[in-house]
Amino acid sequence: MSLTVVGSIAFDSVKTPFGERNRMLGGAAVHFSLAASFFTEVRPVGPVGDDFGPAEFEVLERRGVIADDIERVAGGQSFFWRGRYEYDLNVAHTEDTQLGVFAEFEPKLSAEARAADTLFLANIQPDLQRQVRAQCAAGFSGLDSMNLWIETAKDSLQAAIAEVDCLVVNDAEIRQLTGESNLARAAHAVMEWGPRAVIAKQGEYGAALFTADGFFALPGFPLEEVRDPTGAGDSFAGGFFGYLDGQGGDLDEAHLRRAMGYGTVLASFNVEEFGTERVSRLSREEIDARFEALRRMTQFDAPPAA
Amino acid sequence: MSLTVVGSIAFDSVKTPFGERNRMLGGAAVHFSLAASFFTEVRPVGPVGDDFGPAEFEVLERRGVIADDIERVAGGQSFFWRGRYEYDLNVAHTEDTQLGVFAEFEPKLSAEARAADTLFLANIQPDLQRQVRAQCAAGFSGLDSMNLWIETAKDSLQAAIAEVDCLVVNDAEIRQLTGESNLARAAHAVMEWGPRAVIAKQGEYGAALFTADGFFALPGFPLEEVRDPTGAGDSFAGGFFGYLDGQGGDLDEAHLRRAMGYGTVLASFNVEEFGTERVSRLSREEIDARFEALRRMTQFDAPPAA
Repeated sequence: MSLTVVGSIAFDSVKTPFGERNRMLGGAAVHFSLAASFFTEVRPVGPVGDDFGPAEFEVLERRGVIADDIERVAGGQSFFWRGRYEYDLNVAHTEDTQLGVFAEFEPKLSAEARAADTLFLANIQPDLQRQVRAQCAAGFSGLDSMNLWIETAKDSLQAAIAEVDCLVVNDAEIRQLTGESNLARAAHAVMEWGPRAVIAKQGEYGAALFTADGFFALPGFPLEEVRDPTGAGDSFAGGFFGYLDGQGGDLDEAHLRRAMGYGTVLASFNVEEFGTERVSRLSREEIDARFEALRRMTQFDAPPAA
Repeated sequence: MSLTVVGSIAFDSVKTPFGERNRMLGGAAVHFSLAASFFTEVRPVGPVGDDFGPAEFEVLERRGVIADDIERVAGGQSFFWRGRYEYDLNVAHTEDTQLGVFAEFEPKLSAEARAADTLFLANIQPDLQRQVRAQCAAGFSGLDSMNLWIETAKDSLQAAIAEVDCLVVNDAEIRQLTGESNLARAAHAVMEWGPRAVIAKQGEYGAALFTADGFFALPGFPLEEVRDPTGAGDSFAGGFFGYLDGQGGDLDEAHLRRAMGYGTVLASFNVEEFGTERVSRLSREEIDARFEALRRMTQFDAPPAA
């Protein structure tokens, strides 16, 4: 099985109350790919500039991420984001965004990327997401987005959502997208457009999965040390889609729930340190141990019969 | 087993995007008592005015709530709260609060109320909570509070918290109380003051339980119809402490987790309609069916061995 992801491959400058980093490796496709790499073969698609060098490629390649569809644009600059988080890490401020080579990006997937079994369209302009979707007939596909596209390209975004199996966005964005304040109703409204599953990311509160059959939710993994939330949602998606692809693409309820567990675990490792620092030196054993800890933290049984 | 609760017994005027009610039965001790009444014998303690009549007592008595410790103050007015909720029901605005007979309240518990096995101090001025605690040596006790007391009576509140076994407040209040933005650290800081358990209420996201042994969390029960969130936290506490008291006071991890489930279920019924409307005509069968539904929505298993 194999997985293609399109999205930003970037440098991030991030300041949180617990430290700061300047131009570290980041971007949605990077966080997603590193998380998914523990479960399956993953190919990020996207452009980088001259500034993206051997050190950055090495982080990906050490995790077995296939970098063949990362397009190096001569004379270009990589996508750059600068942001800071308040003492309450749920509050983020974007201070600078430079599209760089992404401004001219025209996705051209390799034969291998087109042949992927699973496709994830990380948060980029929805027309670009549709161009990628048109090139890849993956049997299972997902999409992330953000408030910017809801506000400036809603029709395109809605068309893009209609073409995927699973929407993965923040809960506030599901509400904004549908104009429906009740989350369960909003998720069901999205399912009427096409997707058979909707995942509401809820930051530190975890994530909820809506399907035609029902509802499943997991809390965020409780951590005493959270240093940088950047990329948590992308790592969640990487764990979720990576697990589903890696185990053979079964999409029954039991697999979807386990995938939510792996997504939660990967997101939790992501936020323990800055950028890709923690996930890039993570082991499958650590992932499985935390998955089992999460399982123990969420199980309860019925009372004994009276 | 039996349970005593002290807190407001009130009239509420509430406006939400889905309707409004004028001077309906409400108050923390009322919501708590109705929820707990499905599991155990419960006695609310608190004053009411002349305006609190047979219709209000009947709602309590039909659920078997023992009203002997509700003190009717001749010539007085009951506690009154008026509030409205925005389209996003998580945002509430208090428009009026009239303490009425609560301004002169001096708790005097009956022999039966003093002899309770379990005590819950709902959100009132912390010195009043301590006066009640001093009269009741219940083996298990809990306390709720609010930002007002954190801001105006923090030392008293901290002393009151030190005298109970379980703190049950909103997650933002745990942070505010301890000055610690990380919830897990904040909960552990509270446990150093005395309580052996801390429950963080998280509104629609559910609730999390911190104990010395670990962590457990449940999502809110997903509802397509939420009409009035007033009293949800009190119904949660009523389900939680009511179940624990009713099953004999065992406080092992399995019982605490089930109690979290019953709290979640009672809170979910509470918000389906205005005030006490839904819970006052609820059945134990409906509670048990939703408890089982919640259990099914939160369970997942480990992947089959490779």
